[in-house]
Amino acid sequence: MKALVVHPGQPNSASLREVPEPDPHLGEILVETLAVGVCGTDREIIAGEYGAAPAEDDYLILGHESLGRVLEAPADGELQPGDLVAGIVRRPDPVPCPSCAVGEWDMCTNEKYTEHGIKGLHGFCAERFRVTTSHAVKLAPNLENVGVLVEPASVVAKAWQHIERIGNRAHWSPSRVLVTGAGPIGLLAALLGVQRGFDVHVLDLAEDGLKPELVEELGATYHHDGIQEACCGADIVVECTGVGRLVYEATQCNAHSGIVCLTGISSGQRAIDVDWAELNRRIVLENDVVFGTVNANREHYELAADALKEANNEWLERLITRRIPIDNWQAILERPVDDVKTVITFD
Amino acid sequence: MKALVVHPGQPNSASLREVPEPDPHLGEILVETLAVGVCGTDREIIAGEYGAAPAEDDYLILGHESLGRVLEAPADGELQPGDLVAGIVRRPDPVPCPSCAVGEWDMCTNEKYTEHGIKGLHGFCAERFRVTTSHAVKLAPNLENVGVLVEPASVVAKAWQHIERIGNRAHWSPSRVLVTGAGPIGLLAALLGVQRGFDVHVLDLAEDGLKPELVEELGATYHHDGIQEACCGADIVVECTGVGRLVYEATQCNAHSGIVCLTGISSGQRAIDVDWAELNRRIVLENDVVFGTVNANREHYELAADALKEANNEWLERLITRRIPIDNWQAILERPVDDVKTVITFD
Repeated sequence: MKALVVHPGQPNSASLREVPEPDPHLGEILVETLAVGVCGTDREIIAGEYGAAPAEDDYLILGHESLGRVLEAPADGELQPGDLVAGIVRRPDPVPCPSCAVGEWDMCTNEKYTEHGIKGLHGFCAERFRVTTSHAVKLAPNLENVGVLVEPASVVAKAWQHIERIGNRAHWSPSRVLVTGAGPIGLLAALLGVQRGFDVHVLDLAEDGLKPELVEELGATYHHDGIQEACCGADIVVECTGVGRLVYEATQCNAHSGIVCLTGISSGQRAIDVDWAELNRRIVLENDVVFGTVNANREHYELAADALKEANNEWLERLITRRIPIDNWQAILERPVDDVKTVITFD
Repeated sequence: MKALVVHPGQPNSASLREVPEPDPHLGEILVETLAVGVCGTDREIIAGEYGAAPAEDDYLILGHESLGRVLEAPADGELQPGDLVAGIVRRPDPVPCPSCAVGEWDMCTNEKYTEHGIKGLHGFCAERFRVTTSHAVKLAPNLENVGVLVEPASVVAKAWQHIERIGNRAHWSPSRVLVTGAGPIGLLAALLGVQRGFDVHVLDLAEDGLKPELVEELGATYHHDGIQEACCGADIVVECTGVGRLVYEATQCNAHSGIVCLTGISSGQRAIDVDWAELNRRIVLENDVVFGTVNANREHYELAADALKEANNEWLERLITRRIPIDNWQAILERPVDDVKTVITFD
């Protein structure tokens, strides 16, 4: 079967090639791939900066944002042939850490996990893939065109779950939300904020175009002129850019008991001058919280699938700005202006 | 009656003077003062850098860490004459914010509170004071010599409550705790950590003397040679110095899902070079939390009173390194080496 593979560590080694059918040891659910999303992690792996092949191969099949249709599944299970399904990215080590042991591999404490398409486990960017029942999430039929967004939405669903649990350490009545960055994660974070009834504001750089339109269509408010005006006492800040300075600035303009949730992974080095005494003082005197979140476990995928099912399907379709057939995969390396989510399709 | 008063905003205006008996509008509980603790906030107020007098006076009676004995109380209440009591510092505004409305004035969102001895409300450093029933905390008789530690312990009890509630946003099995700073707050934070069964480590600068002794007597481990060795993968860091750099360093050496709780208030400006990309990346990829906490509500005072009641009374007595009769109050301005907690006594 066709698969998009890389040799991890070798820059620009990505190629489309024939690989064996997925090994049954990878899981009892055989899936026909419909679409695979592309994100910054994939670009880093293609650039040779990240990623690890499975122990038994010298190549890694890319792809961790998946949507497929079940071809084979155990007769007595929840999933049946024809069902829409997404695969969960991270798998715990056979000797799990305490968090992995209870299914919270997103909170893994020893980093001994594997990740489909990223670390030690083949990904989903092939004509067919296999996953275990525990790592296959059934999607509603109305998600046929947009279910590939479940993986990024799962990251956001986890972020919101943790925001709410942390916020509820005391009495809390948040209303204003600031999302920094209007990429796929930021827009999905805004969607889940709107679904919760919050007054959502999104900050990005573009003055016009698709991103402001998508924000406004959601019923949220778009800003492009700096964090002070956009934040304006926000109770919750969901930081989706990885720009470190925004973390500092968010703590300076958010509400008392404000929560700043970091989801963006910074690259490179960014030394900036910050008055740490002032930062420390603000966080203490305002009972502020800054926390990071990465990855998602099964519960978050299910929350994400529910959130997407309830969302406006046309809005979700507009998030997918490019659908690139697998044979033209090189087009994923281009980054057109106004691109939000690029998806590789298998027809 | 005698009281230690200041003219807020005027440096070194502190003086012992005769003031009227406490106004009954301050509360139905009349208390004979036994001891009042002195902390950094008191020194800032004496230096003219902080504090506000009540609207009806041009002076402020100092003191917010209190211990007294009830002289008068409503016959049908829990408190009776002779009971040991501590006054709660912060009072909500008559038009409370949503947090103050549910008794969580420590999480006040609009700063319209008053504070005994600090902001708009006379303090406890007088021969007698008055508090409302809602702001009087009954202490066990065995706290006669150390009950003045209830206020700093309440700050720490809140910190621990929030640490545990935030930690429990997901599965969590912490074991190692680092406390930075072996002042009263740090030592009480260590005490409450030991009471919870944690492996507690305390970092300070002194190579020997009372602080290392107090830490070891608690069954905790004392460190003076830098945060790397002291932290060593701590699951929980309770930062009690206000030194901003420690916040950054703590996020670099703590465990995955680590929680850094900031309790120390920095003064001045401290610009330090920090790689924000690295800081952001660590917090995200490790699901770390950094949060601040200030003040305490009634629940935390009660938790603190319970914690002190269960603690080794002799250890608590050693925390109070100086007991200065009110007539010699100027001695509080000295800062001897090895001083932990200075207390003003009324005999």
